Amino acid sequence: MAVGWFYLSVLALCSLGSMCILFTIYWMRYWHGGFAWDGSMLMFNWHPVLMVTGMVVLYSAASLVYRLPQSWVGPRLPWKSGHAAMHLLAFLLTVLGLHAVFEFHNHAKIPHLYSLHSWLGITTVFLFACQWFLGFSVFLLPWASMWLRSLLKPIHVFFGASILSLAIASVVSGINEKLFFSLKNGTKTYSNLPSEAVFANCAGMLVVVFGLLVLYILLASSWKRPEPGMQAEREALLRGRE
Amino acid sequence: MAVGWFYLSVLALCSLGSMCILFTIYWMRYWHGGFAWDGSMLMFNWHPVLMVTGMVVLYSAASLVYRLPQSWVGPRLPWKSGHAAMHLLAFLLTVLGLHAVFEFHNHAKIPHLYSLHSWLGITTVFLFACQWFLGFSVFLLPWASMWLRSLLKPIHVFFGASILSLAIASVVSGINEKLFFSLKNGTKTYSNLPSEAVFANCAGMLVVVFGLLVLYILLASSWKRPEPGMQAEREALLRGRE
Repeated sequence: MAVGWFYLSVLALCSLGSMCILFTIYWMRYWHGGFAWDGSMLMFNWHPVLMVTGMVVLYSAASLVYRLPQSWVGPRLPWKSGHAAMHLLAFLLTVLGLHAVFEFHNHAKIPHLYSLHSWLGITTVFLFACQWFLGFSVFLLPWASMWLRSLLKPIHVFFGASILSLAIASVVSGINEKLFFSLKNGTKTYSNLPSEAVFANCAGMLVVVFGLLVLYILLASSWKRPEPGMQAEREALLRGRE
Repeated sequence: MAVGWFYLSVLALCSLGSMCILFTIYWMRYWHGGFAWDGSMLMFNWHPVLMVTGMVVLYSAASLVYRLPQSWVGPRLPWKSGHAAMHLLAFLLTVLGLHAVFEFHNHAKIPHLYSLHSWLGITTVFLFACQWFLGFSVFLLPWASMWLRSLLKPIHVFFGASILSLAIASVVSGINEKLFFSLKNGTKTYSNLPSEAVFANCAGMLVVVFGLLVLYILLASSWKRPEPGMQAEREALLRGRE
């Protein structure tokens, strides 16, 4: 891959990721009164911000660590530790984001986990927790054999990408749901597309575009570390030829 | 891949795909009065059924054609034509599904394309149309060089998987939205989880599980046709060694 493309992609990722977070913060500040941590509606406002920041943007950044060519040379342990630590931070923000909505529901006497958005969202967070613990146990702790690691690696990568896809589906359904809740009175119904609706729809589409770019970089072979096994096999074959 | 796994996966795919369609039909028949093609609410009921059938299940079946080992030997043209024809049928069902909701909106004087669900859904269908025309022009018509085809193939595969992911996100947000519309009166609010809500949430989760299985089979290397280029390169290296 050309160096220019690499830096352009990093720039696009950083800009899109920041915009996803900033759009969500602006939506909650400008149209919903900002933030608090007191069980009120203002506590709910942390939910979209923390989920987009933790479960989408930081999760993506953590996933893409191995796509930096700097991670392909030298010892792997610092990169692995960074990958795990960033995902742990993403997970903590996600748990705080869940706490914000559960506390708001408790105070407002709203039942928990009834919508499809919540079913999918909680499943995604559960899968994320399993993925982190399995990844930590197999790839970071020293007990697992190379055979087990290479068996689990494609599954780890697949579930990494799947969890991000499910997070994006959860965010889209969550933004949609929130707009139906908040835009139902007078002329400001969702179907009249007031400014809030256009803005939040754009935020949702931004999250989708960001997610697709991350998934492309995660799955495209040109972004991957060259496989040492394949390289070694090829070199052995070439040596035999000489 | 073991033969047992292959047939188990095909069985799981067929069962899950059929269940996605049957659940959606049952939801619309049992709780929403069935189907008609007259601009009424009963015409809307075709929308979820046709989108799940066309944009998720048939789209997936069409995408997985090349994962059948039978397609790896002999002439490619019949498989390519089948792949394109099945996607065309999926696209036609999708367009009918869109027509159902547009006609219903026209009759009921509801604005079109305001929710994030609709923005994402229409983007997905637009990408599907582009993908089909590009795929048809480059991979089925005879003019394109092998170089162009091998350049575009990974992009075609990536967008194929992405469009399915976006379709699943659209379905999830659509089911969520429909349940907020239809379950808002008396004791039958969505948050009380009446039987319809549980059933339709399960339908949504089924679509997600089906989609993940399809994406796994689509992206896992053990399901792919062995690359002729790699095979040839390896054979050439081995011949040189003798």
